[in-house]
Amino acid sequence: MPLPELKQNKEKRQKLLDCALELFVEQGYFNTPVRQIIAKSGFGTGTFYNYFTNKEEILKALLEQFANEIISSVKDYYTVEKDLAKRFIETKRLNMEVFIRNRKLTEIYCRVAGASEVIDATLKQFEDKLIEFFRKNIEYGIKKGAFNDVPATPVAYGILAIEKQLLYKWIVLKDITAEEMIEMVISYHETLAKGLLKKH
Amino acid sequence: MPLPELKQNKEKRQKLLDCALELFVEQGYFNTPVRQIIAKSGFGTGTFYNYFTNKEEILKALLEQFANEIISSVKDYYTVEKDLAKRFIETKRLNMEVFIRNRKLTEIYCRVAGASEVIDATLKQFEDKLIEFFRKNIEYGIKKGAFNDVPATPVAYGILAIEKQLLYKWIVLKDITAEEMIEMVISYHETLAKGLLKKH
Repeated sequence: MPLPELKQNKEKRQKLLDCALELFVEQGYFNTPVRQIIAKSGFGTGTFYNYFTNKEEILKALLEQFANEIISSVKDYYTVEKDLAKRFIETKRLNMEVFIRNRKLTEIYCRVAGASEVIDATLKQFEDKLIEFFRKNIEYGIKKGAFNDVPATPVAYGILAIEKQLLYKWIVLKDITAEEMIEMVISYHETLAKGLLKKH
Repeated sequence: MPLPELKQNKEKRQKLLDCALELFVEQGYFNTPVRQIIAKSGFGTGTFYNYFTNKEEILKALLEQFANEIISSVKDYYTVEKDLAKRFIETKRLNMEVFIRNRKLTEIYCRVAGASEVIDATLKQFEDKLIEFFRKNIEYGIKKGAFNDVPATPVAYGILAIEKQLLYKWIVLKDITAEEMIEMVISYHETLAKGLLKKH
């Protein structure tokens, strides 16, 4: 059983995560056994199990850091940009930039869905965190009177859905460049913000 | 090598597809070898290879029929509903109803992405067909002056993305019911149609 968080050494934990990510990138998530992660880290087997129970927990921790990075980049931007309409569009660019900076983790995220129940639960935790953050921001915009009073949850799902679909097109299908991907995400959210229907 | 289409017997081909789908549903796509499909069909091995080269071709054919069913259901509806704004929303309900009717194929669609390059290419063909259909309908709405003159391609991707994300939530995560899924898809497209931003 892993040690309580207080007794864990943060640098050791991060070292295990870094080694795991490197191996996942080199040879794929599914082809990387825990013992290779342990060997790469140089720690003993017992040390590994002080921090993680299994490989899925490593993926969960990596995705948790990832979600936090996406959310902080948006929060930092909020301190300098106060216009809610501009925020709605430009935060999508920031999201995509974090995905691009973490290209390898993004690729794992795009590839592992549907593989097993544990993986699906792990991805769900990552996605729910982002969707919840998107939802709160939309509700804030509604409360402040900048947005129409629409159900926020489906919109939050829609944001993640288009980001994910275009990430897949970029990183798995290699069908578009990173720049084209950002452009499509921005164009899409401009339409979502202003509406597809002509006003009469 | 498969026979030219003209020399193929449509019922035999369909029988092979039906047997394959049943096995994919029972034991998963990846756990079903071609020889089991042949055994279930009662045909000889040579007959199978008159129609398909491998398992991916079966999946491709199943998804092609699936895309055609989605598209025809929309086209049928177009013959009775002429209002473009209403069409934009209600066709999404029709899409989801076809996915629900083909629950097992939908589950395969939601689970196999990212598994291999051949699978990804197969799914891409299915998705591209739907995206192209969505794109044409949006461009028709723009041409007819019902929709704003926005880039249609990102919107078409967005439609498939939210449908897929919520299908996954329904059929893989079992997090929402079919009715809740339809409701979210409709709500989302109402927002997309009218716009999130308040007009000033």
